[in-house]
Amino acid sequence: MRFFSFFDRSTRAFQFSKLTLLFAVNTGGLVAYSESKLYSDTSVDLSQVEPKKKRVVVLGTGWAGTTFLKNLDSSLYDIQVVSPLNYFAFTPLLPSVTCGTVEARSIVEPIRNIIKKKNGEIQFWEAECVKIDAANKRVHCRSNDRIIVEGKEEFLLDYDYLVIAIGALASTLNIPGVKEHCHFLKDIEDAQKIRRSVIDCFERASLPNLSEEERKTALHFIIVGGGPTGVEFAAELHDFVCEDLVKMYPTVQNLVKITVIQSGDHILNTYDERISLFAERKFQRDGIEVQTGQRVISVSDKAITTRAKVNGQIYSMPYGMIVWSTGIRIRPVLMDFMQDIGQKHKRALTTDEWLRVKGCDGIYALGDCATIHQRKIMEDISAIFNVADKDKSGTLTVKEFQGVIDDILVRYPQVEHYLKRKHMRNVLDLLNDSKGNESKESIEVDIEGFRSALSHVDSKMKNLPPTAQVAAQQGAYLARCFNHMKDSEDNAEGPLRFRESGRHQFQPFRYKHFWKFVPLGGEQAALELPGDRISIGHSTQWLWYSVYASKQVSWRTRSLVVSDWTRRFIFGRDSSRI
Amino acid sequence: MRFFSFFDRSTRAFQFSKLTLLFAVNTGGLVAYSESKLYSDTSVDLSQVEPKKKRVVVLGTGWAGTTFLKNLDSSLYDIQVVSPLNYFAFTPLLPSVTCGTVEARSIVEPIRNIIKKKNGEIQFWEAECVKIDAANKRVHCRSNDRIIVEGKEEFLLDYDYLVIAIGALASTLNIPGVKEHCHFLKDIEDAQKIRRSVIDCFERASLPNLSEEERKTALHFIIVGGGPTGVEFAAELHDFVCEDLVKMYPTVQNLVKITVIQSGDHILNTYDERISLFAERKFQRDGIEVQTGQRVISVSDKAITTRAKVNGQIYSMPYGMIVWSTGIRIRPVLMDFMQDIGQKHKRALTTDEWLRVKGCDGIYALGDCATIHQRKIMEDISAIFNVADKDKSGTLTVKEFQGVIDDILVRYPQVEHYLKRKHMRNVLDLLNDSKGNESKESIEVDIEGFRSALSHVDSKMKNLPPTAQVAAQQGAYLARCFNHMKDSEDNAEGPLRFRESGRHQFQPFRYKHFWKFVPLGGEQAALELPGDRISIGHSTQWLWYSVYASKQVSWRTRSLVVSDWTRRFIFGRDSSRI
Repeated sequence: MRFFSFFDRSTRAFQFSKLTLLFAVNTGGLVAYSESKLYSDTSVDLSQVEPKKKRVVVLGTGWAGTTFLKNLDSSLYDIQVVSPLNYFAFTPLLPSVTCGTVEARSIVEPIRNIIKKKNGEIQFWEAECVKIDAANKRVHCRSNDRIIVEGKEEFLLDYDYLVIAIGALASTLNIPGVKEHCHFLKDIEDAQKIRRSVIDCFERASLPNLSEEERKTALHFIIVGGGPTGVEFAAELHDFVCEDLVKMYPTVQNLVKITVIQSGDHILNTYDERISLFAERKFQRDGIEVQTGQRVISVSDKAITTRAKVNGQIYSMPYGMIVWSTGIRIRPVLMDFMQDIGQKHKRALTTDEWLRVKGCDGIYALGDCATIHQRKIMEDISAIFNVADKDKSGTLTVKEFQGVIDDILVRYPQVEHYLKRKHMRNVLDLLNDSKGNESKESIEVDIEGFRSALSHVDSKMKNLPPTAQVAAQQGAYLARCFNHMKDSEDNAEGPLRFRESGRHQFQPFRYKHFWKFVPLGGEQAALELPGDRISIGHSTQWLWYSVYASKQVSWRTRSLVVSDWTRRFIFGRDSSRI
Repeated sequence: MRFFSFFDRSTRAFQFSKLTLLFAVNTGGLVAYSESKLYSDTSVDLSQVEPKKKRVVVLGTGWAGTTFLKNLDSSLYDIQVVSPLNYFAFTPLLPSVTCGTVEARSIVEPIRNIIKKKNGEIQFWEAECVKIDAANKRVHCRSNDRIIVEGKEEFLLDYDYLVIAIGALASTLNIPGVKEHCHFLKDIEDAQKIRRSVIDCFERASLPNLSEEERKTALHFIIVGGGPTGVEFAAELHDFVCEDLVKMYPTVQNLVKITVIQSGDHILNTYDERISLFAERKFQRDGIEVQTGQRVISVSDKAITTRAKVNGQIYSMPYGMIVWSTGIRIRPVLMDFMQDIGQKHKRALTTDEWLRVKGCDGIYALGDCATIHQRKIMEDISAIFNVADKDKSGTLTVKEFQGVIDDILVRYPQVEHYLKRKHMRNVLDLLNDSKGNESKESIEVDIEGFRSALSHVDSKMKNLPPTAQVAAQQGAYLARCFNHMKDSEDNAEGPLRFRESGRHQFQPFRYKHFWKFVPLGGEQAALELPGDRISIGHSTQWLWYSVYASKQVSWRTRSLVVSDWTRRFIFGRDSSRI
């Protein structure tokens, strides 16, 4: 295990990773649960439960839905789960499935297996939600089973609370030909199709009476999108080709080409610049071509056409297979729903900071299908001023401001981000900043001064990325809210309501960024940690192994994933086309 | 491990099984190879090889084709392999794949992996043979790849020797609706479909607003055909339901019904009667309904209709899923080929005892697609008499007869079977029998006496069953013939040619029956051994485990299969619908 020290600063991260590695390896699954159990230790006296439990309908069994279910105290509610898939898939390992590093079945766990461990009875229906009827508080579901008795495939479920966690679809950006000719990488079935398709390309290229040019075309793998998924797939594919397929297909090994097309200037552009640069150099060494600044304009059955952003030049490349990995789009059922409730945001269902869908009662949305609308502090600036100005003097003293600071920080997390960016230690510094260098204690601001002090705070609010980490944290958060629903009715725990009286029932959802991995192939990976720390190299790959093993949803999948990795080390990846 | 002693005679078999178990467990893969390497230790001096090697085209990568390739000295020929599947599948474990006891990928091995271990270069084309042109000694092949350049999907291969080992298709017996509504169990894809379909049935039965009757229908699993495959699948399904699915689908567990429909009077009717009876009793205890003496007359999307053979009564049963397992039929490409060469047998391609297709030059057929036409001794009776009657006296003395006995026994194996059936120790007993109780030495027969002595020998000739064991032995046999092709030209090793002069180039193919297993569920299996010995029970299941593990084609699949079994013991079978 050689540690590849790429940048000086990564050494610091390495100290951390070594520790975590040891910890993760030694504790096995404990790490996996420490986080998810954070909110689940709430036991409720059964005598307090009302005879008629509230009905909760959960749509979806991805990261958000499953984490919600795992953490929910199921004795408190009458719970029904609806999903067209009867399993939870550990999606971060999907790129590994595409090349057989890990088997598809090793990363799935039947949802019935997960819910049967809960104390109360949870019902699961393998069906798709086709309509959300918020007015009547019910959802229309339809089974995808083709053999079911006619007329019985549709059914209605009434709810008191609806939890929407149905994820998203791959976005084609409305580019012609993408849907017809490209592979996506959103679910297990996609990954299995890609695996078969890679082998198809090699078998095709090996057939007699093809010209060298035609063989090269068959073995030209194009990945559109240089995000973590696309990059990881490119790296996996490169390893698969170099480590396994060259032995099986020796006649065509020199004809393989892998190209990553990225519209931005760099791949992995949501990562630390050092990681992005390292990945680009590694890909260059590996012979993976990275074409940046290229926009795909169409895909035909034979070629993909791109336009260079710089000079508008059009390129056309023949291909054997394209994997399309460029973002997500909302599911049709939610588009209809958004129209019904008057939401205009096109990308996802908008919720408030408590994951409640705006404009509805008792409906929550989380994971990739939702986006949190973070309230701007400027919208509430007068209300905040009025609440803070206890003596109604028209000016705010430092003491008065201090009385609401905590609530402001909780309610408007952008304040904290702004302070960090500006390297300020204290919210008071904001006032200080706007008033020049007066001594802190003597500062007094009127409403205009207050407004100007906070005027830039809202400037750089970011949406959360559509990742498993976000979805899982939202699921755990919402489960905790549901578990405490009754307690917190009388005993609100959230921040002050500035525009109304009292407090919010719960703390708003706050995403904690822990880590961001990206495997780069050749037993190397990159890791981004909070606080500008990164780690790159072989040791990071080992850390990745241990973290991903520990994060598995069950001991069964954990042992399967680890045995898959071992099997790959010993025997390589299988190239049977099944 | 408790040994279930069912019949007294099985004890003898158990002694044997205990030994074999130990041996198989200790030696691991050695057993697997001992048989297959029997004929492969022929190394040929390269200087003897002609500059232009003969071209061998092998069609198919099942048991016959793969065993042929594994045993062939590939330095002697220019070898090309054509198959629509780029892997070899260990088909005896297919029933285990249907319920996830073993994963599909654990029983397949890329054919390229197998052939790359050979010394000479073997080319593999993933394509299907669509026409055999015996007149021009070439085959027309077509790739099933859908993306290949137009016009390049078809190609021709010239051959000097053609080895046809393309197996067979599942037979529908031309019963309406079977093709549309039933599952078959011939290949990996079938097994994967059945696995998904079983889960579909359970998910369907769990949906809301179905009546109890509709749920029962969804969970009615019907197996048509009480042969070893059908019986093993029924047993696997029963275990899957009882051990795993009842925990996942507690609400519908009492609605499951498994029915085996068999047209004969007993299931497993090619097995020893004691095994067949044991299986029927075990199924009765397990609640698996066995309907014997029923012929299926049609299948609709809702129900299967049968007619009782006894009284012609018609029954109709609604079902959730049907698995059709009732024999095989020939592939269309071979039907065309048989028409070309004037073969009229409908079930399979007819070969002589050296696996050479009758009416062709340089074409061999083996495995499920072929059937051996065993020459009757009566057809050659005069020729044999003439050859044996060395002094041309018109009568055969014992001494003269002894001169040809060995060749007769090799050329006409039915003689030996006949002797065994009649409990005779020696061929001379035949003459003895026809002449009364004369002393052996003094017997002399004329042609009529000879004819009458052997007249019943041909009476009970049987075709070989379409099993993996037969196919594998044929593959190994043919490989040995190919390896010795040159040596044996000058030095024929076969029996006397009675109708012509000289000897046959090779010994004819002779099937050696070793064992016949059938797992019956609940960790019990039955085993039939030569010499009327059987063994039934838990120990036999363990023997089954060790034999099947050792018979795996590679160390990779062996370790995967064993780890699948272990995983199943610890975690049960997975019910995710992927």
